[in-house]
Amino acid sequence: MTGAANSPHSQQNAEFMAHAIALASQNILSALGGPFGAVVAKDGRVIGEGTNLVTSTNDPTAHAEVTAIRAACAALQTFQLDGCDIYTTCEPCPMCFGAIYWARIRHVYYACVAADAAAAGFSDQHIYREIARRVDERDVQFTQLMRDEALACFQEWNQMANRIVY
Amino acid sequence: MTGAANSPHSQQNAEFMAHAIALASQNILSALGGPFGAVVAKDGRVIGEGTNLVTSTNDPTAHAEVTAIRAACAALQTFQLDGCDIYTTCEPCPMCFGAIYWARIRHVYYACVAADAAAAGFSDQHIYREIARRVDERDVQFTQLMRDEALACFQEWNQMANRIVY
Repeated sequence: MTGAANSPHSQQNAEFMAHAIALASQNILSALGGPFGAVVAKDGRVIGEGTNLVTSTNDPTAHAEVTAIRAACAALQTFQLDGCDIYTTCEPCPMCFGAIYWARIRHVYYACVAADAAAAGFSDQHIYREIARRVDERDVQFTQLMRDEALACFQEWNQMANRIVY
Repeated sequence: MTGAANSPHSQQNAEFMAHAIALASQNILSALGGPFGAVVAKDGRVIGEGTNLVTSTNDPTAHAEVTAIRAACAALQTFQLDGCDIYTTCEPCPMCFGAIYWARIRHVYYACVAADAAAAGFSDQHIYREIARRVDERDVQFTQLMRDEALACFQEWNQMANRIVY
């Protein structure tokens, strides 16, 4: 890509974001889930697209970014989206943030900020606040048990010759 | 449940965690993915189970907790797991942490800590560090564009009479 194409306000970036916004809009009208859309693109081409499908698929993990990442990985038959960018209509929540990092996305383009989503009833501030807290200070109880027994899994893993490290 | 059953070291909690560990162990031997397992339980019964299926399903979001939550939601035909607990062989990464909160899980039981996973090659410390950083200080570039256009989606959402708020 040329420098111009890489500019945040390039025509291509605007087209991908407009596509993500159109997906979000269709998603609302189709009553498939929340007002969010995302597109994963690589080398100037859309690889995967997604919308929030939480309520229609009974999947609390089906946020637009997760759905788009799953679609892009399925299309490319890979679990790492090297060289791919994501265009999302809103700043990612902690879950989607993690998904973006695990997928090795290169660049995140976002439109609305978290406060915009919160004003529409979709606040992730509680999760951002909780994730920064110590385990024993969280609203949701976290309890550790059987660490020794579970550690054996990592030993089994390290002994596997054909393990796929990622 | 009685107070004894609710104790972190109750027989029931040990059974659910042992089940999660067995799932992780089977997952390694079957070469389906990383050495992680999780179980979602409610009222003394396993509702959903999951393992890390990232490499075998080409889905970077298919961590054990996410897989177990999706299975539990499919089983209960709901997108909110009220009254459900999760038993995971390792502390959740930021993605799974977010999924646990969106799913409204009541209590998180974990065995290994993040440092144990890191020693086996599965470190999420980079993601925890990045999520706490300002947008303009992250290793992955975050660029905002077209907020005004995307804000229209939230307006459309608020005008929908049949929207499912969650």
